[in-house]
Amino acid sequence: MKEFFKVADIQEVLEYTSDFSSVEPENVQLFETAGRVLAEDIVSEVDLPDFNRATMDGYAVCASSTFGATEANPAYLDVKGVIGMGESPCFSIGPGEAARISTGGMLPEGADSVVMIEYTQVIDDTTIEVAKSVAPGQHAVEVGEDIKKGEITLCRGQRLRPQETGLLAALGKVRVKVYKKPVIGIISTGDEIVPVDETPGIGRIRDVNTYTLSSLVIKAGGIPLTFGIVRDDFDALFEKCALALAQSDMVLISGGSSVGTRDFTIDVLSSLPGSGILVHGISISPGKPTILAKAHNKDQKKAFWGLPGHVVSAMVVFEVVVRPFIEYIGGVTLERKRHFLLSAFLSRNIVSAQGRIDYIRVRLIEKAGMLWAEPLLGKSGMINTMVKADGLIEIGINTEGLEKGEEVSVIPL
Amino acid sequence: MKEFFKVADIQEVLEYTSDFSSVEPENVQLFETAGRVLAEDIVSEVDLPDFNRATMDGYAVCASSTFGATEANPAYLDVKGVIGMGESPCFSIGPGEAARISTGGMLPEGADSVVMIEYTQVIDDTTIEVAKSVAPGQHAVEVGEDIKKGEITLCRGQRLRPQETGLLAALGKVRVKVYKKPVIGIISTGDEIVPVDETPGIGRIRDVNTYTLSSLVIKAGGIPLTFGIVRDDFDALFEKCALALAQSDMVLISGGSSVGTRDFTIDVLSSLPGSGILVHGISISPGKPTILAKAHNKDQKKAFWGLPGHVVSAMVVFEVVVRPFIEYIGGVTLERKRHFLLSAFLSRNIVSAQGRIDYIRVRLIEKAGMLWAEPLLGKSGMINTMVKADGLIEIGINTEGLEKGEEVSVIPL
Repeated sequence: MKEFFKVADIQEVLEYTSDFSSVEPENVQLFETAGRVLAEDIVSEVDLPDFNRATMDGYAVCASSTFGATEANPAYLDVKGVIGMGESPCFSIGPGEAARISTGGMLPEGADSVVMIEYTQVIDDTTIEVAKSVAPGQHAVEVGEDIKKGEITLCRGQRLRPQETGLLAALGKVRVKVYKKPVIGIISTGDEIVPVDETPGIGRIRDVNTYTLSSLVIKAGGIPLTFGIVRDDFDALFEKCALALAQSDMVLISGGSSVGTRDFTIDVLSSLPGSGILVHGISISPGKPTILAKAHNKDQKKAFWGLPGHVVSAMVVFEVVVRPFIEYIGGVTLERKRHFLLSAFLSRNIVSAQGRIDYIRVRLIEKAGMLWAEPLLGKSGMINTMVKADGLIEIGINTEGLEKGEEVSVIPL
Repeated sequence: MKEFFKVADIQEVLEYTSDFSSVEPENVQLFETAGRVLAEDIVSEVDLPDFNRATMDGYAVCASSTFGATEANPAYLDVKGVIGMGESPCFSIGPGEAARISTGGMLPEGADSVVMIEYTQVIDDTTIEVAKSVAPGQHAVEVGEDIKKGEITLCRGQRLRPQETGLLAALGKVRVKVYKKPVIGIISTGDEIVPVDETPGIGRIRDVNTYTLSSLVIKAGGIPLTFGIVRDDFDALFEKCALALAQSDMVLISGGSSVGTRDFTIDVLSSLPGSGILVHGISISPGKPTILAKAHNKDQKKAFWGLPGHVVSAMVVFEVVVRPFIEYIGGVTLERKRHFLLSAFLSRNIVSAQGRIDYIRVRLIEKAGMLWAEPLLGKSGMINTMVKADGLIEIGINTEGLEKGEEVSVIPL
């Protein structure tokens, strides 16, 4: 080991996020905003709705005209006209008056509510009978009741779900400032790794991590940029890392899980411009031999991760620490937590070592209306257990194990 | 109403999925499989791994050579050589022998386990001291231990997560048969609706549903194909529907929430080739005035939905019934449920009408280690409540309400 072995806990690793800058914003069309991260606060320039709107089919009225109306003792109102969709009514409504209106129609001046069509009877061309009273504001939305002019409706750093995109549409924001998707470089290392389209010779295996990590990057809102497989050779890895540093916002190097390869991954990362090893080992299992380094490219500090070669370990490290970094550099700043964990009961006892956080793959099973987490034990080089798994549970650093029936939080996979 | 008003419950609506056929399969590159639905069973043609593999750095040994070894009473083994990464060892290991090996390296013949480097001491060039016993198979993966040759590893109808893509990589599947993404046509109707880039005149509003529905379609794994806004006019809507029928796998018509518009949406849907109204009204709130119809295009039966115009109603109907249809026609057949619901405690009493399922928007709040669901009441035309919401809770058809502190399942939004 050439440097001090900086084993960190997860919290310490996550604190390094602020060492890195977020990607630049860009303007996109409203149609392209799905899942993107907002790079500006959105202040409404209008009231929504900007007219009093019916939310039911029926008659626009002054609520007071209906007070006390029942089937036995209906109110009789004069019909002043019909309000067409998208029309501004050319008359107003006074006490004892009504106007036929459809859902979404504009209430005439003087009307404050809508009597549902179901509670009315047409008596003649100009008279209806109303069998139920309405309260002021009922079956109508007032000007600004949804969104008020000048209100901050969406905040920078917020990820845009369908409803947020809908709100932007309602406000007429046809172009929206969002953060660029962070480009995440992916490098596989190891003399034993062959490309997927080759038949591995004896003692060799296909490159799995490039594919799992690419898919994870997409899920996390980034763009994977793959750099292929690098042999266990300092110069080859240095050259690839220098290229990835120039072309990516962050880099994931997987493999090099043997001590020898780890050593020269550290050497390479220490040789990059403006480099520094921030973390060398994380107190988690699987995933302990993880490296976090920084490097500079044109005044930009970029994170380099040395991930374990075992596919399960690399995926766990991604879920636990890499994903938050991608979100951070991708501009996500919203305090409001959108990822809530599932809760389940443990189906059997599991033991765990103290001094590290253990991540256990679990399958979720619904039994008798309860959700059970069934641990899938298996070596971290085996992808099959990840395919069977629905999530991960965490066994705390000071816990020796968990008992059957205990409630656990599940990180969905 | 021109036809019998077929109000259905959710279960009845979902049973119509099997009336429709799934989209065609296509072959894609492994890199393009993220989130796609597998259209073939994957049978492994190889054992994984196909050689006995070390999972730790150390020495390959016969486990029996270490039995009883402790720090006080170590075992001494003869070192026969070093196994390089990706190499097939040219020697075998017998009792009392060992070979230096790295994680991922190939165990020599005769070796059945690996002693971790931490528990060994180099005595001289050809001798090590072992301070801990290992069990057969420890720190190694056997041939076929992850995946056995001939095993069905992935099934048709399964959505591909990062780990499934990783497994396909491990098996060398460079091209994969997946279902095409279903193309979902989206039409907005209503005389009061204007395109987002226009300033709505008085009494008019911008087209929100095209955008929320497009984003929802993307989230559900489909491709939105938008057809813009259609005025309240039979011929215009018929023409758009005929076009959408030819170009899409399923069509969503939103708006027409007023009785008059609903009527001619029904008329148009009844006039399409091979048409039939399957559902006219669902016993849910919001979302009751939903229409499900079928139409034929070149022997293909396609679903047409008439969704309510209110943005909240349209989104709820999408989550509850449209999404399962998109998944079904998109080829998802896997029985194994991947969408588990969050569990939370209700923060206050809510009342509900019997005879329908109520969907209530909730915000989730973590308080004292528990997750609370706080109902967000608001009219279904107001998008702001959806922006504030983290999920929906369901109040059953025979329930008059729920009490504060009751445990509820939350559909995440």
